[in-house]
Amino acid sequence: MADGIPRRLSVVTLGAHDVAALRAFYERLGWESGSPPGNFAAFPLGGAVFTLYDAATLAEEAGGHVAPPAGAFRGVTLAVNVDEREQVDAALVAAADAGARVLAAAQDRDWGGRSGYFADPEGNVWEVAWIPDASFDSRGALIWPY
Amino acid sequence: MADGIPRRLSVVTLGAHDVAALRAFYERLGWESGSPPGNFAAFPLGGAVFTLYDAATLAEEAGGHVAPPAGAFRGVTLAVNVDEREQVDAALVAAADAGARVLAAAQDRDWGGRSGYFADPEGNVWEVAWIPDASFDSRGALIWPY
Repeated sequence: MADGIPRRLSVVTLGAHDVAALRAFYERLGWESGSPPGNFAAFPLGGAVFTLYDAATLAEEAGGHVAPPAGAFRGVTLAVNVDEREQVDAALVAAADAGARVLAAAQDRDWGGRSGYFADPEGNVWEVAWIPDASFDSRGALIWPY
Repeated sequence: MADGIPRRLSVVTLGAHDVAALRAFYERLGWESGSPPGNFAAFPLGGAVFTLYDAATLAEEAGGHVAPPAGAFRGVTLAVNVDEREQVDAALVAAADAGARVLAAAQDRDWGGRSGYFADPEGNVWEVAWIPDASFDSRGALIWPY
């Protein structure tokens, strides 16, 4: 048992090959970053902070790695949860309008919800999901219903 | 502008090659999952939900991808933010005790904070970070100070 580690997922950082272009995509989603222009941009999103950071710099800082190429599936997905079932479909349309590639159309899932997937211009994968009985706190953070 | 997409980062899912083993690692960090045993485990962590999902299943569901191998740097980092500067060092020791590999020792950063990095047993990278002037809401979710 590691008492020294809080139960927090505070920040998610995507290594970005073109921070400015990727930032512009997320701003087209309607998300706002107050960060000055540069190799980093932060988007506070409900209960977590989503950040973009120059891919090579992040890879080096995080232990001397090489950044994977843009477009490669990273084995990681991020999710935006919506309040109503039909908002999944609408959100995927909105993402496509902003320049995303829809990877999987909205569909009902065997766990009782509905979801679909899109990729940002560098191939980072997002799920748009509706979970029955989910609710959200005042900041928009998901309250896990299970 | 895509009005159809809420400003939320609700869930982060890591494709896991061995869900049970990876879940056990995170439980050794002191994090709790109420999920039944299987190919999925959810850990509510403050303002976001952290989940593990069978890597091949996630890759297929998210658009017919192939899962990257365990151990590869994914170009994505997740962060646990702590309240005090010296907790960065303690959290890295705690992670190592739980079976993590420390990738970058705690160090002061040029943005004024302190952080270090560790990898879980499948190579997924976490940063432990202290940000001056950060605070947290009642659920432990970071309030971005910038």
